[in-house]
Amino acid sequence: MELSHTDKNGKANMVDVGHKPNQLREAIAKGFIKLQPETVRLIRENQMKKGDVLTIAEIAGIQAAKRTPELIPLCHTLLLTKVDVRATLTDTGVEVTGYAKCIGQTGVEMEALTAVSVSLLTVYDMCKAVDKSMVIDNVRLVEKIKTNLD
Amino acid sequence: MELSHTDKNGKANMVDVGHKPNQLREAIAKGFIKLQPETVRLIRENQMKKGDVLTIAEIAGIQAAKRTPELIPLCHTLLLTKVDVRATLTDTGVEVTGYAKCIGQTGVEMEALTAVSVSLLTVYDMCKAVDKSMVIDNVRLVEKIKTNLD
Amino acid sequence: MELSHTDKNGKANMVDVGHKPNQLREAIAKGFIKLQPETVRLIRENQMKKGDVLTIAEIAGIQAAKRTPELIPLCHTLLLTKVDVRATLTDTGVEVTGYAKCIGQTGVEMEALTAVSVSLLTVYDMCKAVDKSMVIDNVRLVEKIKTNLD
Amino acid sequence: MELSHTDKNGKANMVDVGHKPNQLREAIAKGFIKLQPETVRLIRENQMKKGDVLTIAEIAGIQAAKRTPELIPLCHTLLLTKVDVRATLTDTGVEVTGYAKCIGQTGVEMEALTAVSVSLLTVYDMCKAVDKSMVIDNVRLVEKIKTNLD
Amino acid sequence: MELSHTDKNGKANMVDVGHKPNQLREAIAKGFIKLQPETVRLIRENQMKKGDVLTIAEIAGIQAAKRTPELIPLCHTLLLTKVDVRATLTDTGVEVTGYAKCIGQTGVEMEALTAVSVSLLTVYDMCKAVDKSMVIDNVRLVEKIKTNLD
Amino acid sequence: MELSHTDKNGKANMVDVGHKPNQLREAIAKGFIKLQPETVRLIRENQMKKGDVLTIAEIAGIQAAKRTPELIPLCHTLLLTKVDVRATLTDTGVEVTGYAKCIGQTGVEMEALTAVSVSLLTVYDMCKAVDKSMVIDNVRLVEKIKTNLD
Repeated sequence: MELSHTDKNGKANMVDVGHKPNQLREAIAKGFIKLQPETVRLIRENQMKKGDVLTIAEIAGIQAAKRTPELIPLCHTLLLTKVDVRATLTDTGVEVTGYAKCIGQTGVEMEALTAVSVSLLTVYDMCKAVDKSMVIDNVRLVEKIKTNLD
Repeated sequence: MELSHTDKNGKANMVDVGHKPNQLREAIAKGFIKLQPETVRLIRENQMKKGDVLTIAEIAGIQAAKRTPELIPLCHTLLLTKVDVRATLTDTGVEVTGYAKCIGQTGVEMEALTAVSVSLLTVYDMCKAVDKSMVIDNVRLVEKIKTNLD
Repeated sequence: MELSHTDKNGKANMVDVGHKPNQLREAIAKGFIKLQPETVRLIRENQMKKGDVLTIAEIAGIQAAKRTPELIPLCHTLLLTKVDVRATLTDTGVEVTGYAKCIGQTGVEMEALTAVSVSLLTVYDMCKAVDKSMVIDNVRLVEKIKTNLD
Repeated sequence: MELSHTDKNGKANMVDVGHKPNQLREAIAKGFIKLQPETVRLIRENQMKKGDVLTIAEIAGIQAAKRTPELIPLCHTLLLTKVDVRATLTDTGVEVTGYAKCIGQTGVEMEALTAVSVSLLTVYDMCKAVDKSMVIDNVRLVEKIKTNLD
Repeated sequence: MELSHTDKNGKANMVDVGHKPNQLREAIAKGFIKLQPETVRLIRENQMKKGDVLTIAEIAGIQAAKRTPELIPLCHTLLLTKVDVRATLTDTGVEVTGYAKCIGQTGVEMEALTAVSVSLLTVYDMCKAVDKSMVIDNVRLVEKIKTNLD
Repeated sequence: MELSHTDKNGKANMVDVGHKPNQLREAIAKGFIKLQPETVRLIRENQMKKGDVLTIAEIAGIQAAKRTPELIPLCHTLLLTKVDVRATLTDTGVEVTGYAKCIGQTGVEMEALTAVSVSLLTVYDMCKAVDKSMVIDNVRLVEKIKTNLD
């Protein structure tokens, strides 16, 4: 077994995907930011006022997905056909789910994970004045699908 | 107590920092990516070959710190005077520490946290072919310092 | 009278602001997108459902303000201390107001105008499936303030 | 009729274009910036000296078209095969025409409109020292073509 | 013979590549930065310590290749399937080789050349405190390949 | 003597400039692209038609200077107060001179060099259909000035 992004001498290596077939690629990632009860209450109140907090976090995630190849040095540019980010308030924090989809030669898990990470950082930013103990946790891939085009 | 980034109607609000004094701002953030033992072994082997994996993760973090205001919608542009990102291999994964510093009117915690998050995503990207169960965890601020200029 | 961005030979010229004093700079711009009554009705309905349309337009405007020097070739990079964008639904369309502020050596009118323009384009994007006759109009500066620092 | 970018709950929604066929997509947009007679005279003089003003506005528009998905949150990344921007001086201002073309799964009207808007903002920037009453007007789509690939 | 990027009136012109077939496109570029013997010695020492200097230069080149259409006004966005950048220390400086590959409607020489140029600038940046006479030289295309897809 | 961007273990290191005084910083860089006589003739003809080739190269250079910290991993963000790029046709090619200026805590040589490099790459791009033997040469710093503020 070998790291796909390094060659035999350990050097950086952008994986050549030129020979791979175009396939329908989908990925779902999730992550969580733990908040204090008071912070959860403030976001709930904000949502009741038709507030913007969770929407801004979702938009930040969608935009970050599109910029994944700028952020992650060895990622390929892809033509995402769909990105969806949902931020949901729970009793202990905000859970973010990110979905990315493309027809391309390599998978979209980094796009889904980047969307989730930046969305969670955006929640952090908006709550940092009131909550000094936030933690971003459990950012992981939950599903990855590859479908042949007919 | 109120969310600083929303007004009374819950609308998005970039906090006005124009009246704040220029101060020396520093922040340290940390985060972790859990890896399987085999993945840890491969990165260790890569490091022994003077490999690039951890360096690329560090560089990606430094560069991401500088682009924080592009990623986080309500963040201010700052003139960072120093960013440092260290990725350390442990027996169970990679720990990333990010440090940001500026002289400015608002803090640099989002810069440190963004550096850590993108650095961890970069490790994820380079290991995703060999490890299907990675989790990014415990991304948090560990220190924030504000010093008056003389 | 002379164009400030061209020299005597007509060549492009980024104005040197290095000798100007740091001042508090503020600017307000406005613009409008004309919509069909049915489109106005759909946005109103969206707002009643706590919908995202106007919030997304506002966020897009805030983010664009921060990227003005990337978009406008001869603009200077500035450290905006505050950006505010408000999108308001009227009976005939959406009016966007953009406010930008910085302490710096040159004015922020281009930042306010860029925020307004991109915010209006974002409304256009979200309504283009239902409205084929939208027009963006009357994008202009409404106020520009320069205040000496004490 | 429904807004295509929001779901039944009013939430932001990047339209899934993955099932659409690749087609030749073209769009033409136009817009105008009203200038004072003296400003028109100065630009005419600049053009007679082989000046740069209109060229810079055109280049800014071409570059902005390529960055549309970074600016407009719910836009898809596309591979534009051609962008053309023409800025023409009239007796009352500058008219900008933008043309965008791609082979892809969604239209290029936002790319043409973004090119026009940023090109007009660039004219604004270069004339703002001499003209305090400029207005950007009538930014709209004038043609949109979709052609099947054989 | 004519410049392909200007029309009969000398105006800027993004070449329309929409009618060209998708082909496998590859390009290799090279360039060199001349360094003083002492600087070469310091980089050699850095490499012996498993140092980062050449790796950072390589990563900067890979990332720049992906951003070529943002930097070069009339370049098209492409989906690079592979970028490789190698920085090699010689007795008189650092030689950088850049390789780019895509399946697309236009060539990738600008991507290879941009990778090489930014990689060399990154070496310059890291050595500028110790070497005041560095020169970047001989940046050129060494191979360009176009292969029909079957 | 030591490389300023690496620590004792050879690791990447963004130099801390936080303790340095704000000074007026200026830098001038130059570079050259060798062209075949026929290419020189075509650019001369383009210039006689009030053509855009050299203007586009200059604008690309100005814009690149502002994005230097995005391209060069260990560079600091600076507030450039002036950038000037001049492309001059000679009998054997195009010479580009780049000037950058800021008031800040670190020098602007990388900004001037990046402007020159990207400007030369832009000439390359526009001439590559007619000239297969272009070489970018002699990119170097020609002057660097540091002036105390009073």
